[in-house]
Amino acid sequence: MSKYWSPIVSTLKPYVPGEQPRIANLVKLNTNESPYGPSDKVLSAVTAAANTDLRLYPDPLALRLRETIAARHGLTTGEVFVGNGSDEVLAHIFAGLLKHDAPLLYPDISYSFYSTYARLFAIDAVEVPLDAQFRIDLADYDRPCGAIILPNPNAPTGIGLPLAEIERLVAAHPDQPVVVDEAYIDFGGQSAIALVPKYENLLVVQTFSKSRALAGLRIGFAIGQRPLIEALERVKDSFNSYPLGRPAQAGATAAIEDEAWFEATRQKIIASRERLTERLTERGFEVLPSQANFVFARHPGHSGEVLMQALRERAVLVRHFAKPRIADFLRITIGTDAECARLIEALDEIL
Amino acid sequence: MSKYWSPIVSTLKPYVPGEQPRIANLVKLNTNESPYGPSDKVLSAVTAAANTDLRLYPDPLALRLRETIAARHGLTTGEVFVGNGSDEVLAHIFAGLLKHDAPLLYPDISYSFYSTYARLFAIDAVEVPLDAQFRIDLADYDRPCGAIILPNPNAPTGIGLPLAEIERLVAAHPDQPVVVDEAYIDFGGQSAIALVPKYENLLVVQTFSKSRALAGLRIGFAIGQRPLIEALERVKDSFNSYPLGRPAQAGATAAIEDEAWFEATRQKIIASRERLTERLTERGFEVLPSQANFVFARHPGHSGEVLMQALRERAVLVRHFAKPRIADFLRITIGTDAECARLIEALDEIL
Repeated sequence: MSKYWSPIVSTLKPYVPGEQPRIANLVKLNTNESPYGPSDKVLSAVTAAANTDLRLYPDPLALRLRETIAARHGLTTGEVFVGNGSDEVLAHIFAGLLKHDAPLLYPDISYSFYSTYARLFAIDAVEVPLDAQFRIDLADYDRPCGAIILPNPNAPTGIGLPLAEIERLVAAHPDQPVVVDEAYIDFGGQSAIALVPKYENLLVVQTFSKSRALAGLRIGFAIGQRPLIEALERVKDSFNSYPLGRPAQAGATAAIEDEAWFEATRQKIIASRERLTERLTERGFEVLPSQANFVFARHPGHSGEVLMQALRERAVLVRHFAKPRIADFLRITIGTDAECARLIEALDEIL
Repeated sequence: MSKYWSPIVSTLKPYVPGEQPRIANLVKLNTNESPYGPSDKVLSAVTAAANTDLRLYPDPLALRLRETIAARHGLTTGEVFVGNGSDEVLAHIFAGLLKHDAPLLYPDISYSFYSTYARLFAIDAVEVPLDAQFRIDLADYDRPCGAIILPNPNAPTGIGLPLAEIERLVAAHPDQPVVVDEAYIDFGGQSAIALVPKYENLLVVQTFSKSRALAGLRIGFAIGQRPLIEALERVKDSFNSYPLGRPAQAGATAAIEDEAWFEATRQKIIASRERLTERLTERGFEVLPSQANFVFARHPGHSGEVLMQALRERAVLVRHFAKPRIADFLRITIGTDAECARLIEALDEIL
């Protein structure tokens, strides 16, 4: 606390990201990164962008990237908004679309950055509890509200909702923006992007960090009809005209263009998830049904905190949330088969 | 305007950046980019970062980059904050340090993003007029206020203030944050970074976009004592944990390490500015005394608007601001000698 701070600063509760430690020979299964490097075409595009044009500002509109994303989904460039990671996109969404007189709704167990944003932008928010099986029950969202945001599949549970349920939610709230955060959609869920032409209140958010293996390049995007995208553009152009540098724009465009890499890699991760789920289940874990690139699992005989620490001592990092109801769970990112084997080996020592 | 927008959105006045057109053979002197490509060491570092580690999140603390910046100035890592271009750094500064009960002060003719930020964050601001010679007169800032921000040298005038005057301003406002925006300091000004150990209310902002020739990579930073930096960290960690991607962190670190490139390039640009000033003066222009990588000039016989258009028809882009008092000025970025020659040639046709 300092007399120089704007009053809001002392009220903030900053988000705490998963660790990015510098430990050798680490099995890093704590931040939902892809175990496989990005497409070679992405690496070539980033390399090609390392030229003297770095002296020039990037395209503030990121037109080529937005055209490429739009074309993949049969939409127009104006229906695509891009940002410096989906976190920045979410920040602009909270500022530009989610602050209303009636409260914003989101799940109580969810991406923990949501409550951080709500605080930063002084948004009145109500956390809607997950049901006893840790599922989002959309009937609970049938109440007066200013806006809704939820991840599909949800994090850290990994549990997805069918597209028909998402559509019912969007249709039931024609006067509220409904934001579906699809950071993990490519690992088994059905994207709501297909519904965008039909619903003017629907906004879908995706990221390049997970299924495109580009967490290190920082690109996220949102898709919706013009009025929603225009709000984001207005906020963005009041904040930072050039959020995406030249290497990021070039790399992201190449990533979208390499559909073969994308399809093969996500299938590999889905297959590894199914194998890991089986092995954890065999060892007594309860594993929530995941449509993401991670599983959320607990063991009846061991606390989550203790397991996390014991794994850490064996150089295996997983994520643990010291929060009510989920304190006994571990969120385990799907690694390569070798990494999953080292995790299982470490667990066999511990259990 | 849409019922889905947060109320603030319709009040915003987004910043309009200089054009980034895709015209061949253009002499682009409108956005203050460096006419020279960045250091080869930067290009090597960005190329080296185009590897499979892009799948991993970057260091959210950007430790190596901050250590490198801190070492160059004899400071500690904790006194350095980095962001996605100095625009993002400024946005966090406005949110975290400049919103108080008493008004924020900044020059009326200045970086036009300031008023955009003030509106975004609902900050009460007073624009302090430049004097008749388009200079900042610091005596005008001797009034009750909540905070002060000013560029040194100022933009778009290019006129700098001596360090002793900056120090008097900082010392005269011990209870207010004073932010010195040094985007152009390396082209002839004296940085206030030297004063940081002495004044707890001083924050200095710099960018890699101009003197490091890295507008396309998006890196800016702020330097100040811990309480000021902590405010920025809290806002940043409530907004986006990972603002700088791996190529940006690697490239920026290499840029700071290549002092020889930096020194040679800025001297070249300063020398070109002096020659261009001379040539413009010979042709009847009034050129304000610049310490930046641009000049601000007007011709008694020609309107700024007409000159800008006539240059544009000759594929020479300069920046024009349709604003009171400065509508007859052109802001001309210092190009290579060949680019400056093409500008002069075009002007000789027009005048």
